[in-house]
Amino acid sequence: MTDPPDLPRVLDLSAAFSRVEGLWRPHVAGELNGQLVKLARIEGTFDWHHHADEDELFLVVHGRMRLEFRAGVRELGPGQLCIVPRGVEHRPVAEGECHILLFEPASTLNTGEVRTARTVEELPRV
Amino acid sequence: MTDPPDLPRVLDLSAAFSRVEGLWRPHVAGELNGQLVKLARIEGTFDWHHHADEDELFLVVHGRMRLEFRAGVRELGPGQLCIVPRGVEHRPVAEGECHILLFEPASTLNTGEVRTARTVEELPRV
Repeated sequence: MTDPPDLPRVLDLSAAFSRVEGLWRPHVAGELNGQLVKLARIEGTFDWHHHADEDELFLVVHGRMRLEFRAGVRELGPGQLCIVPRGVEHRPVAEGECHILLFEPASTLNTGEVRTARTVEELPRV
Repeated sequence: MTDPPDLPRVLDLSAAFSRVEGLWRPHVAGELNGQLVKLARIEGTFDWHHHADEDELFLVVHGRMRLEFRAGVRELGPGQLCIVPRGVEHRPVAEGECHILLFEPASTLNTGEVRTARTVEELPRV
């Protein structure tokens, strides 16, 4: 197989998650059309937040999580995705370690409209 | 679990692919920030094409495929993704049936800059 360096790279999600350091710290896995593909390892309960102008996609790759909304709860397991529309308050929760792929605009802050101790300003790459 | 209809839905990819009809016919699974999440079942060799202004993400959910470029080939299996930058000619090929998730702007035509017998103008939803 030819493999010139200018070919688009193939990212193996399992391998990439092993390079994600820390919990609740999204790492950038790719960029397209002004959107970022991010990988995060999560465990525990995050902060309630929303994104005023940005929809956000959650895809569970490993483990289980739930998305809590003010109106109810969605449970997600491997191979399941949920798109949280802009403006909708949500709180991700994972009882055990969970690996998620996020898809959202490059401008999106992980904690939405609020800056907290968990806000990550400069995202590492994976 | 409360389950009001106004909660964002959870999409199970395996279940969703069973509702995808036909080969090389992307079905829309969700929309966010002007981008579409599409699911497609592919098998065989597609047409060479490129997208002038749109980057395109391929994520293999089931099976194997390869992305042929003029400069070489990338092989993808389950849990592996590749982002094809705008303007780069490519040709998806799958020896056996392969299920892929695509992420690209709502405006993207599946055959890129050319209309062929495989061009799908109105995408079904899944």
